[in-house]
Amino acid sequence: MSYIKIFATGGTFDKEFNEIDGKLYFKETKLYELLKLGRSQLNVKIETLMMVDSLKMEKVDRDYIVNKCRQEKTNRIIITHGTDTMVETAKLIAENISDKTIILTGAMIPINFGSSDGLFNLGSALSFIQVLQPGVYITMNGRYFQWDDVHKNKKLGIFEKIKK
Amino acid sequence: MSYIKIFATGGTFDKEFNEIDGKLYFKETKLYELLKLGRSQLNVKIETLMMVDSLKMEKVDRDYIVNKCRQEKTNRIIITHGTDTMVETAKLIAENISDKTIILTGAMIPINFGSSDGLFNLGSALSFIQVLQPGVYITMNGRYFQWDDVHKNKKLGIFEKIKK
Amino acid sequence: MSYIKIFATGGTFDKEFNEIDGKLYFKETKLYELLKLGRSQLNVKIETLMMVDSLKMEKVDRDYIVNKCRQEKTNRIIITHGTDTMVETAKLIAENISDKTIILTGAMIPINFGSSDGLFNLGSALSFIQVLQPGVYITMNGRYFQWDDVHKNKKLGIFEKIKK
Amino acid sequence: MSYIKIFATGGTFDKEFNEIDGKLYFKETKLYELLKLGRSQLNVKIETLMMVDSLKMEKVDRDYIVNKCRQEKTNRIIITHGTDTMVETAKLIAENISDKTIILTGAMIPINFGSSDGLFNLGSALSFIQVLQPGVYITMNGRYFQWDDVHKNKKLGIFEKIKK
Repeated sequence: MSYIKIFATGGTFDKEFNEIDGKLYFKETKLYELLKLGRSQLNVKIETLMMVDSLKMEKVDRDYIVNKCRQEKTNRIIITHGTDTMVETAKLIAENISDKTIILTGAMIPINFGSSDGLFNLGSALSFIQVLQPGVYITMNGRYFQWDDVHKNKKLGIFEKIKK
Repeated sequence: MSYIKIFATGGTFDKEFNEIDGKLYFKETKLYELLKLGRSQLNVKIETLMMVDSLKMEKVDRDYIVNKCRQEKTNRIIITHGTDTMVETAKLIAENISDKTIILTGAMIPINFGSSDGLFNLGSALSFIQVLQPGVYITMNGRYFQWDDVHKNKKLGIFEKIKK
Repeated sequence: MSYIKIFATGGTFDKEFNEIDGKLYFKETKLYELLKLGRSQLNVKIETLMMVDSLKMEKVDRDYIVNKCRQEKTNRIIITHGTDTMVETAKLIAENISDKTIILTGAMIPINFGSSDGLFNLGSALSFIQVLQPGVYITMNGRYFQWDDVHKNKKLGIFEKIKK
Repeated sequence: MSYIKIFATGGTFDKEFNEIDGKLYFKETKLYELLKLGRSQLNVKIETLMMVDSLKMEKVDRDYIVNKCRQEKTNRIIITHGTDTMVETAKLIAENISDKTIILTGAMIPINFGSSDGLFNLGSALSFIQVLQPGVYITMNGRYFQWDDVHKNKKLGIFEKIKK
C-alpha cells in the first residue's frame, strides 16, 4: 500500500509558547513527536508547507496547498490546518482535486499544552485516510465530514454537519 | 446513527501508579477523560466489565466479554484490553459473533503516564468503528488488523500482520 | 508555626489557552492544583488579588498588593507575579514593609502547558519562605535574590544579580 | 559559592514504565530534565550512584553512599532516594558526617508519570540546601526535617515529625 502524506500548515495544532516575549508562535511541527507517541507503524511522510495562523492564510497560500496536493504522488493526504478557515481550504481543494482522499484536521489546543486534542485527531485522521473513498474531508471531534457538509461552530468550538 | 459502545476491561491502558505501595494497579477507566480531551462529539456509551491485567484474564472472563458483546443492542463495539492476550479474546469473539463491528484496542503505556499512546489509539478505534464492515478487528499502531491476521511482536512491542 | 500566605496576581504562571478564540487569557489560579501535586503539608492560605499580565499592572494595582501584604496577619508571604515587572513590585513592597519575609515568584511557561517551571519555582519559594530573614526577595531559576540586587535578563529569560 | 552535588540513587523518583514487559524499572535519572524544566541557574553536578528501589538497598549500598558524601569536595549535597528507607540512610550519614549540609529527597510518583511531585521536591531541596546549616535533613511535602525527627507515615504517604 502506498504511503500517507501529511502536509503541516500550522494552526493551533503547532502553536508554542515563546517564553521570551510571552506570545504564541510557531517553531516546527510536532507531527514527528505525535507519530512516535502513537507508536505509529504506518508509512507516513511529513512535509511542512507553512506555519501560519489559518486566519492569516491568503489565497496564494491556499493555491500553494492545492498545488502540493495535486503534485504529491500518493492518493492519501492529510493536512494539519488551523480550524478557523479549515472549511475554506477544503472547498478550494475539492474544486480542484477529485481523485485523492484528502483529510484536513487540526486541534483546539496546541499539542505542546497539556490538554490537547491533537493526538486524538491525528489518530482519527490517520485511520479515516485508510478507508474513506476519494474526496475531501474534515476530521474533528472523532467524526469525519464531507467538505461541503460541515461548518465550525465558533461558539462551541466544535465542527458540525450543515445538512440535517 | 446508533451509539458506539466501549467496554473497558483494564490492561496497561488503565493502569495507575499506587503511591502508597509503589505498585501498578487499577482504579477506574480513564476513557471519560480521554473522550473529553479529544473533544469527541460521538454518541458513546462506556461500561467497565472488569479491570484486569490481560495475562490474568481467564476463560470465564472472556466468556463474559463475548456475552456482553452479544447482548449489547448496538452493532458497533470497542473493547479496551491488555495487549498481551488481545488476539486471544478477539478470536473467541469472532467465533461467536459475526454481525457486529467489534474493535479491540489498548495501550503500551498507561494513559496516566506522560507518554501514552492511549489517546491516539482511541482516536483510531473510534474512527475505524464508523467505517469498517462487520467483523472483529484489532487497532494498534495506527493500523487495523483482521482478528485472524495479527499477532503481537512482544520483542518490539508492536502488532503485525501474520500473512504476507 | 504560623501560616504561609500566597497572593496570586496572574502573570505567565496562571495563563491559559482559550480554545474558542485561540488567545491566552486568565481563568483562575492553578496554585491549588500545584500544592496538591507537590503533596504539600504546609499550612498555606491562597488568595487571588488580581489576574493580570504584569506589563499591564498599574500603580493602583501595586498599591493594592502592598496594602494586602501589610494587612495580612502572617509574616510570611509569597506573591505569584508576572516576571516582566516583578522587580518593580518588589521594590515598592520593600519601600513600605520591612518586618515580613515576602517572596515574589512566577513562571516563564504557564502552569497548564507541558513544560512549565511553575511547580519548581513554587517548591523553591515555599522552602525559602520558611528560612529567610525578613525582607523582600525574588525566587526564580532555583535561586533567591534580594529585591535590590536582581534584574530580569529579558534576552535570556532568566533572573540575575546586579552587583558583582 | 561552591557547587551543589546531587547523588541519584533511584527510588520512585526515577522509575519508568517498561512497555515491553509492563513492569516498572530504572533506566537513567531524570534529574537533568528536571533542572532544565526548572530553568535552574544553580551550579549543580549530578552523579548517579545506583538505580535501586530503596526497599532493596543493603548495608553495602548505604556505606557506599556515605563514603561518596564524605569524599565529595563540596559541603552541599542532595541525594534522591526511595522514600521507604530514606530515614534509614539519613541516619547512617548523620552518624558519619557532620560538617556538610546533606538533604535527602524523593518522590511519591515517578517523574515520568503525569502527576509527579518530583519537580516540586527538587525545587524545595535545592532551595533548602542553600540556606540550612550543616546537618542531615529530609525534604518532602514542602517541609524540611532533621534526620532524627522524621518518619514516613506509610498509610498516608507523607513525612511527619516524630517529636511533638
